[in-house]
Amino acid sequence: MFESADLAHHVPKSVFKREETALREALLDAQFDLAAQRRFAVLILIAGVEGAGKGETVNLLNEWMDPRHIGVRAFFQPSDEERERPDAWRFWRALPPKGRIGVFFGAWHTMPIVRRAMGESTEAEFAQAIGDIRRLETMLCDEGVLLLKYWFHMSKPQQKKRLKALEKSPATRWRVTEHEWAFHAMYDRFVSISEPFLRETSTGEAPWIVIPGADPRFRALTFGRHLLAALRERLDEKPVKKLPDKTPPLLAPADKVTVLSALDLDQPLTRADYRTRLEALQGRLNALVRDPRFKDMAVVAVFEGNDSAGKGGAIRRVTGALDARSYQTVSIAAPTEEERAQPYLWRFWRHLPGRGQVAIFDRSWYGRVLVERVEGFCSEADWMRAYGEINDFEEALVRHRIVVAKFWLAISKAEQLKRFKQREKVAFKRFKITPEDWRNRDKWDRYETAICDMVDRTSTAIAPWTLVEANNKLYARIKVLDTLCDAIARALEQGGGRKRKKG
Amino acid sequence: MFESADLAHHVPKSVFKREETALREALLDAQFDLAAQRRFAVLILIAGVEGAGKGETVNLLNEWMDPRHIGVRAFFQPSDEERERPDAWRFWRALPPKGRIGVFFGAWHTMPIVRRAMGESTEAEFAQAIGDIRRLETMLCDEGVLLLKYWFHMSKPQQKKRLKALEKSPATRWRVTEHEWAFHAMYDRFVSISEPFLRETSTGEAPWIVIPGADPRFRALTFGRHLLAALRERLDEKPVKKLPDKTPPLLAPADKVTVLSALDLDQPLTRADYRTRLEALQGRLNALVRDPRFKDMAVVAVFEGNDSAGKGGAIRRVTGALDARSYQTVSIAAPTEEERAQPYLWRFWRHLPGRGQVAIFDRSWYGRVLVERVEGFCSEADWMRAYGEINDFEEALVRHRIVVAKFWLAISKAEQLKRFKQREKVAFKRFKITPEDWRNRDKWDRYETAICDMVDRTSTAIAPWTLVEANNKLYARIKVLDTLCDAIARALEQGGGRKRKKG
Repeated sequence: MFESADLAHHVPKSVFKREETALREALLDAQFDLAAQRRFAVLILIAGVEGAGKGETVNLLNEWMDPRHIGVRAFFQPSDEERERPDAWRFWRALPPKGRIGVFFGAWHTMPIVRRAMGESTEAEFAQAIGDIRRLETMLCDEGVLLLKYWFHMSKPQQKKRLKALEKSPATRWRVTEHEWAFHAMYDRFVSISEPFLRETSTGEAPWIVIPGADPRFRALTFGRHLLAALRERLDEKPVKKLPDKTPPLLAPADKVTVLSALDLDQPLTRADYRTRLEALQGRLNALVRDPRFKDMAVVAVFEGNDSAGKGGAIRRVTGALDARSYQTVSIAAPTEEERAQPYLWRFWRHLPGRGQVAIFDRSWYGRVLVERVEGFCSEADWMRAYGEINDFEEALVRHRIVVAKFWLAISKAEQLKRFKQREKVAFKRFKITPEDWRNRDKWDRYETAICDMVDRTSTAIAPWTLVEANNKLYARIKVLDTLCDAIARALEQGGGRKRKKG
Repeated sequence: MFESADLAHHVPKSVFKREETALREALLDAQFDLAAQRRFAVLILIAGVEGAGKGETVNLLNEWMDPRHIGVRAFFQPSDEERERPDAWRFWRALPPKGRIGVFFGAWHTMPIVRRAMGESTEAEFAQAIGDIRRLETMLCDEGVLLLKYWFHMSKPQQKKRLKALEKSPATRWRVTEHEWAFHAMYDRFVSISEPFLRETSTGEAPWIVIPGADPRFRALTFGRHLLAALRERLDEKPVKKLPDKTPPLLAPADKVTVLSALDLDQPLTRADYRTRLEALQGRLNALVRDPRFKDMAVVAVFEGNDSAGKGGAIRRVTGALDARSYQTVSIAAPTEEERAQPYLWRFWRHLPGRGQVAIFDRSWYGRVLVERVEGFCSEADWMRAYGEINDFEEALVRHRIVVAKFWLAISKAEQLKRFKQREKVAFKRFKITPEDWRNRDKWDRYETAICDMVDRTSTAIAPWTLVEANNKLYARIKVLDTLCDAIARALEQGGGRKRKKG
């Protein structure tokens, strides 16, 4: 994979000067068009062997391009805040929005290679990490990100020569420490791990581009020319109106028996019983969250349901049991402009709780397979792939010891009508009912199909859906609290014996 | 994932009779259109829990559809021939061509689940198997196969009830043995492995469709209706002319220094030295292939090169050293009609050698990234993804202890002209030169770019390219033999300590 990069490349100064000027102008033009179009984001990954010019190239890029539309992030040791969240969190928060270029220096490829090179992971774990990366990158590409992956390479003799040269000059001597020589000693091991890594994470849409690093001018031109060509290709492309639909259909069951139709939505619970149980469960929830072991965990609770099913009321009964410093309620409405400029999961990643925290989502990422599917806000291909992407997302949370509890509050069509009418009558409730709600109601059947598919495709052993019979609000609130307490209690039990998986 | 399937579904006989007739007619129509269009192949995977009606459904399908255009393959213990080849070989050989439906019963999903359930593989190995499956299925979908994956499910109580019912009737008693009850005892374990498996191998293009298996009529209708809808959707779709190009560009190096330009194509070797070395190397090769340890290995040698670079002559010097029973030469020209109806790697899988055999490919799967790229026979997206697919393919060979040796025979443009002219002059060589060869010569530079990209993207530690300086034919033949002998010798050495990886 490094055949071309191992050759002795060279670009004379005069050639470089001439080309560089033209390249800079063209890159600035491209950057301007990118910002003007705001159709896609560009994410540049910079990786490779020590001393092959990664840092210099990033500096060059900053010099060449308009710094207002480019953001460079180097990932070293994670911060406290980052350590409290799943590994991918720090990459998500740094993603460039549409119209901008993001440069990641040492992103998700670094740790799997280093751990394997250090013998801290097995071959199968390495393969698993590669699978995770392929899925993440596929998702980014499917979301329209132009992902450009540059691997800076130099041969072992070239690396040695370079380190010696740096050491010789008083101006650069400080850059060569024991650390650099230790890396040099590990060169063969590092390359023997990187090579299969590059091979297995190169895809048609996001291949690694190997940049020979030994000659600074050749390196700069190779990188700059490729970046320009890649930007131009995408910028100048005519958007295709309709892509072929390659997803098989999902059908409603032949006998109309669904997980929703099988529910008995009217569950009895008297107000007196409700009060007793509420008090007990709120006390239990409070105690669970104050358990010392909870400091090493977190909770993500998702509330979805029919309009007027009582999500707000149920959420208040949960938060009523919690210390205000230990939870956050995240209300999901239509995405903001900033959120629309990002892959759709971005706006949920940003709200993930830290250690010992509870995040309550009033509506969630499931909008993708509910409202966006039913209203046609995204293509069939988009919501079909979302099931897998959501499962991957929740698996990342669970791996990080976050309890994922998902509630669907279900009411009957008749009960909804009753509540809608009541809302229209009561002055202080009128803000809760809009023409939108009535329109959604007309699409009741299509929503039911979407809900059942959602449950079947995303209720998993690690993050199950709880369907809550909610015609009786009191019963619904108790079932929510009860389920949530049990889920946290189970996780606390398991926590003792289970170590958090690294990287 | 089994929420809907666990419900008590039921379809009355009268409803079934009515629907079945219409369904059969529509399915036959779809099958007819599929055969008439011959645009794509349909591959149906049948999997799921014991007793959930997998076999019955396949029987039904055979009954419903035209048996001339459907092929059912059940995969149990591999045959001797199959065991001698990589695991995927038996699936490749059974793939349906365009216009036909193939039904796979117990395909590539079976062993990973069984091995994990039996505790024979670790979680990381399981994840690795899942990654392999996703890549295989992505490739099939990219090649246009309509991949439909049906998982037949029943709950544990439903399974028990069904086994009891079968036992009761004298007509079906024979179907329930200790084996079935042993499976029943493992139900929970099996489902706890299957569930994440389904989750992680469900993609937008190839999601698992769960078929509730307890009620035979509901099961048959659910399966039949889905199959019909999926077929119709694809059959009725208008082909899209031009897909957006989502692949970044590959550029030639700024300084024109390439792996080819760096070669000194004129290497000295006198005829006398050639004769001595040829004899020694042919003797060595013969001895290596007769080594008892070679019985557990195989060789795939690939010969590519410029037109008239001397591939044929080099191949004859290799085969001249081998027993006629131990090798096969596979000449790759334009694909046959049968081959064009399959994914492009199919015609190479079919020629893989058995144990102790040498397969010599005169041209190969690299046509995809050479002639098909340069001539525009496939789209950029197709040849860009081919690098990864080829690497995956070769990795499967190497994992199965097949030595993969790849030779690029390189001559200069001037040397080629000389040889072309000579061929035109000599009567018995005239068949070797065609207008096609002259046309290819006009595209010399574009071929060079393609060759260099091929080397950079597919020369891997496990299956490296050897670039052979071939202006002097004698030198080229010796370098080929020498490299091949070394590769086999190295593999024989490693063979002792290395066990073949299972499934």
